[in-house]
Amino acid sequence: MNPAYDFAAPFQDPKGSAIRELFKYLSQPGMISFAGGYPSPALFDTAGLNAAMVAVQSASAADLLQYGSTEGRPQLRAALSALLARRGIAAAPEQMLVTSGSQQGFDMLLRTLIEPGDTAIMTRPVYSAAAQGLRLAGARVVGVATDGAGIDFDELESHLAAGKPHPKFFYCVPTFANPSGDTMPLAQRQRLLELAVRHRLLIVEDDPYGQLRFSGEPLPTLFTLAQDMPGASDWVVHLSSLSKIVAPGLRIGMMLAPPEVLKRCVMAKQISDLCTSPWMQMVAEHYLNAGALERHLHVIVDAYRKRCDTLVAALREELAEAFDFSVPQGGMFIWGEWKHGVDAARVLEHAIKANVMYVPGMSFYTDRANPSALRLSFAMPTVDEIGEGVRRLRRAYESYMGAG
Amino acid sequence: MNPAYDFAAPFQDPKGSAIRELFKYLSQPGMISFAGGYPSPALFDTAGLNAAMVAVQSASAADLLQYGSTEGRPQLRAALSALLARRGIAAAPEQMLVTSGSQQGFDMLLRTLIEPGDTAIMTRPVYSAAAQGLRLAGARVVGVATDGAGIDFDELESHLAAGKPHPKFFYCVPTFANPSGDTMPLAQRQRLLELAVRHRLLIVEDDPYGQLRFSGEPLPTLFTLAQDMPGASDWVVHLSSLSKIVAPGLRIGMMLAPPEVLKRCVMAKQISDLCTSPWMQMVAEHYLNAGALERHLHVIVDAYRKRCDTLVAALREELAEAFDFSVPQGGMFIWGEWKHGVDAARVLEHAIKANVMYVPGMSFYTDRANPSALRLSFAMPTVDEIGEGVRRLRRAYESYMGAG
Repeated sequence: MNPAYDFAAPFQDPKGSAIRELFKYLSQPGMISFAGGYPSPALFDTAGLNAAMVAVQSASAADLLQYGSTEGRPQLRAALSALLARRGIAAAPEQMLVTSGSQQGFDMLLRTLIEPGDTAIMTRPVYSAAAQGLRLAGARVVGVATDGAGIDFDELESHLAAGKPHPKFFYCVPTFANPSGDTMPLAQRQRLLELAVRHRLLIVEDDPYGQLRFSGEPLPTLFTLAQDMPGASDWVVHLSSLSKIVAPGLRIGMMLAPPEVLKRCVMAKQISDLCTSPWMQMVAEHYLNAGALERHLHVIVDAYRKRCDTLVAALREELAEAFDFSVPQGGMFIWGEWKHGVDAARVLEHAIKANVMYVPGMSFYTDRANPSALRLSFAMPTVDEIGEGVRRLRRAYESYMGAG
Repeated sequence: MNPAYDFAAPFQDPKGSAIRELFKYLSQPGMISFAGGYPSPALFDTAGLNAAMVAVQSASAADLLQYGSTEGRPQLRAALSALLARRGIAAAPEQMLVTSGSQQGFDMLLRTLIEPGDTAIMTRPVYSAAAQGLRLAGARVVGVATDGAGIDFDELESHLAAGKPHPKFFYCVPTFANPSGDTMPLAQRQRLLELAVRHRLLIVEDDPYGQLRFSGEPLPTLFTLAQDMPGASDWVVHLSSLSKIVAPGLRIGMMLAPPEVLKRCVMAKQISDLCTSPWMQMVAEHYLNAGALERHLHVIVDAYRKRCDTLVAALREELAEAFDFSVPQGGMFIWGEWKHGVDAARVLEHAIKANVMYVPGMSFYTDRANPSALRLSFAMPTVDEIGEGVRRLRRAYESYMGAG
């Protein structure tokens, strides 16, 4: 008999992550996976990080091993501030909270803003762990369609015109989004900020992929644009991370937020984990201050560009009649859909038999799901694996069509 | 004008921590502080930790730098399981969640159990960051008195007899408590577990100090005792940490919990920070597996014993007429009160002028506070500083009495 624990409502009968359910197939021998959302460990700058690790060995025990300040080490915040400045993001260290990955930044916003029954707006499709966070905080999530042309402002404005309940925030990944790969055009960024000011709508800009650009011109972040629009900087929270440009194992992210929001997120982090590991903060700060990121980042970007180009070419070669997709200008993901209303979860069953994997789009919807959609990550497989993986995808698709 | 953010109710006008307000005085030249809750960095095993850091340099990038599993590395969970086993705590790695300090373990319980308006029971006095966590989760906290003789069962049973609302859990630090230094006697531990089973009351046993014993015989943890009492193991969550026995900078803690609780806490951690740094996990696992903790722990325990003895002797010498306190058998804290109803916050003003600090007890109460109480930590000051610090305390007390 199961003891009758009295869990909070969202945890009483929680749904696990469908993506995590796929993990078990990853260990299938010879599997080629487009499913992961992880960066490629083969591209990590292990030499640069080892040098940073050696450099911190001479630090004092009180700096390295003691509790640190909840806000994060001033030296790391200065290094991150310099990193952001090189991308045109002007943020003083005092505007920044060091977080244990950008996931924790989002979580601090959930803690300080969301009560059960509150509403928040997210793009459709959306990063699944953010949507899951909102669900488990007891929030109602409403979606706003997004595609290669940007977000659907009619839908967004209709949510806002509805008035009550006032949504607590709008969450988006404006640059090389997970899962869609899309980048919000400049005019839309401006319009979104105008809407934020008019409706007193907090915009959560999650930007873990912004530095992974293969093609096209860099666009200013919402955070940057907001500095030049009266009142807008009060309504933008910017989340970022070293996970995709250095390594996730550091668990170093950052939040830029207006003072009243930042102050409360510091309190939320205080009760969450007191501080992010000072040891890892020092490694990150040595790595950044040594200029290692500037020296290494192009290695990651060049590899992802090549993998993306290979995947695009292979999809056009092998699946032109079966699969529609858009080509991203950066990041780690291609989003697309099987034509003719073919169901992505059902094709996946055939794909797993053919030793290739992707994530069905259903995992990335909070409403109005497109069952034909799917996400392909090109970050992990090599160029050779990508070619073979797409040939397997075609066989899986044909097998599904034949079986159907 | 302040933008009208719509924060969650507990964050609308949150009270900062009174303890953190004291931080600014720590940098006063020559200050002797009994105020901190931090372990002494001079006692950290920097050689052992450096060896562990060097050892992990040969690890693969995928192990060290990639995202890890939310549950924690199996190798670290095995090492922690062995560490617990040496203390008589039999817990399989599958019963364990690696957390970013024991603070995060408590936070995962808040996430999965507490909704605004819920009730939880804590000892009075209680660890302030746990109480703050409950407040910021919107919970109502009810206290149960605790002193050298243990917890007040009449008060606890009266809360439980009240029935509705059923308290979500009872939080305590049964061994060398923060702030009281008290250890719950064996008979009380048994009785608490019987109560837990009878009332279906989850017991949260926070045990960061359990290995810091100077005197007396080790007592079994609530987790251990529950294994031998029918039904009891369903109602005990055990939180622990390497922060006080290795170093806080690792940010490595652990939770042992019944399966249904653990499963949900894993989901809560997933949305909180995805995983604890695998790099720090590997350092911890190398440190533990090398036997370094066994070799070094006595250095910490011996130093704390000596500091505690020194503080006890000095308090008896200098402040016998003014200050009542109990002598702990381990941990980092002495709890006491000024006699004659003297206010601890007001004496502190004189103490800061005399260049010595402590934490007024008010920070550790959620109800029915004793304004004369205060906490002295002996972990950080050296033996010489302790003697001088207590002489300053006496001068501060005399100055207060003279001024009053």
